[in-house]
Amino acid sequence: MAHTHSLEIRVRYHETDQMGRFYNARVLEWFEAGRTELLRDRGMSYAQIEQRGILLPMTESHVLFQNPARYDDALRLNTAVTFAGKARLRFDVTIEHLDAIPVARGHTIHAIVDPAGKPVRPPTWVRQLIEPAGDGN
Amino acid sequence: MAHTHSLEIRVRYHETDQMGRFYNARVLEWFEAGRTELLRDRGMSYAQIEQRGILLPMTESHVLFQNPARYDDALRLNTAVTFAGKARLRFDVTIEHLDAIPVARGHTIHAIVDPAGKPVRPPTWVRQLIEPAGDGN
Amino acid sequence: MAHTHSLEIRVRYHETDQMGRFYNARVLEWFEAGRTELLRDRGMSYAQIEQRGILLPMTESHVLFQNPARYDDALRLNTAVTFAGKARLRFDVTIEHLDAIPVARGHTIHAIVDPAGKPVRPPTWVRQLIEPAGDGN
Amino acid sequence: MAHTHSLEIRVRYHETDQMGRFYNARVLEWFEAGRTELLRDRGMSYAQIEQRGILLPMTESHVLFQNPARYDDALRLNTAVTFAGKARLRFDVTIEHLDAIPVARGHTIHAIVDPAGKPVRPPTWVRQLIEPAGDGN
Repeated sequence: MAHTHSLEIRVRYHETDQMGRFYNARVLEWFEAGRTELLRDRGMSYAQIEQRGILLPMTESHVLFQNPARYDDALRLNTAVTFAGKARLRFDVTIEHLDAIPVARGHTIHAIVDPAGKPVRPPTWVRQLIEPAGDGN
Repeated sequence: MAHTHSLEIRVRYHETDQMGRFYNARVLEWFEAGRTELLRDRGMSYAQIEQRGILLPMTESHVLFQNPARYDDALRLNTAVTFAGKARLRFDVTIEHLDAIPVARGHTIHAIVDPAGKPVRPPTWVRQLIEPAGDGN
Repeated sequence: MAHTHSLEIRVRYHETDQMGRFYNARVLEWFEAGRTELLRDRGMSYAQIEQRGILLPMTESHVLFQNPARYDDALRLNTAVTFAGKARLRFDVTIEHLDAIPVARGHTIHAIVDPAGKPVRPPTWVRQLIEPAGDGN
Repeated sequence: MAHTHSLEIRVRYHETDQMGRFYNARVLEWFEAGRTELLRDRGMSYAQIEQRGILLPMTESHVLFQNPARYDDALRLNTAVTFAGKARLRFDVTIEHLDAIPVARGHTIHAIVDPAGKPVRPPTWVRQLIEPAGDGN
């Protein structure tokens, strides 16, 4: 994925469970951090996107858990974004140890809606954020 | 405490950490469940209170951790509420195993504010909720 | 699903986010509550299963988010379990408002492993828990 | 506090609630990040401390909530550690916006125990970690 954004995180104690690994639901919280930092890196934070009246509620998530990660392990999140139809975004994420051993991978789908929750055609500034000029050429 | 409300909960797997006990911050989430069910039992849910324009943001919390509790342990929360000055509420909570071994105890203080965050004198319906007629006699 | 287990939960304040709905990752925590109570209802708690040396780490999750649910909404979780191959379990879950409006649906896959993380053939007592005698006839 | 450790974090979406601010229990999770990074900065991670057989379960927490912080706000955590008696540690934490507006402050007390949960006199390597040579002179 050419335009993948990378983010390094650490497994926090409160993210572990009694199996001694990160708890499964934490992956969806990490996916959020990946989306947030990808968008900021593209030039507009998700906070700014919401302030402009565009919300991106999740409509679907899929996660494969590949290998454990333990407390304080440093992990790399790689996040990419594409359009999934006209009014939906898809984020693909891989999480790996710094030595590239895979931890989890998955994707999430997000509706593009206004503050009332109504799906909207993404405005130009959203399109440019997701598909920067020259992307894919 | 005469007007204590009791609620039974179970420690969930996602609330444990690698020490094999519940994680410390979960207690503040359990305190919330205790407040919510106490108020519902008094006759008005916190959801309804917010809809009437009164919010109760936390301004202080204090917790003593007394004994561990493990995954799937059934625990009893005992919650009581009083006024702490004119525009603040105080909730006192004890958490114990069903055989009365103490797990944690503490209290939280909450401002009484309007949706803009401004402290307000509690209206009569709030006073009656917190200090039901005949209370303390 | 003939042997579906039902559990009623409430959306807690700490499970909401600034969109005013439950946060997406909470669904995986609710799925856990559904699995736990289904197994207890079958006659053995997941805590007891772990004590007998069988762990069920999640290997895959899929969730469709259908409709919002808000703070203090009462929701019904319906959970069913089947074998997915020889050493894996599959839990199917639907979450709905009490008036049957769907909130989310999905499934999770779990490996059946020993405490060292090695996949094991499910012992008879596990098979009987998942496929009670007479099931499916 | 001379030996305060600073850490910058951001409020994540999953840490907000429907009031549009971070949820109160998140502060205890942030306190954990502060402790972890302070100890790593001193030369030994908390993961290593646990591997050496010393655990630090929380026995008390106190938090004052001073001002709201919203999604994606960057916050500074300042953490300091001292002994609180012979077998206990105390961490003092302040959280503030980058322009120094205070968000929350508090402290936590931790027992120093072995893996069986028995309080132990802190070994020399723990004392040196908490009170580096020359500290306080």
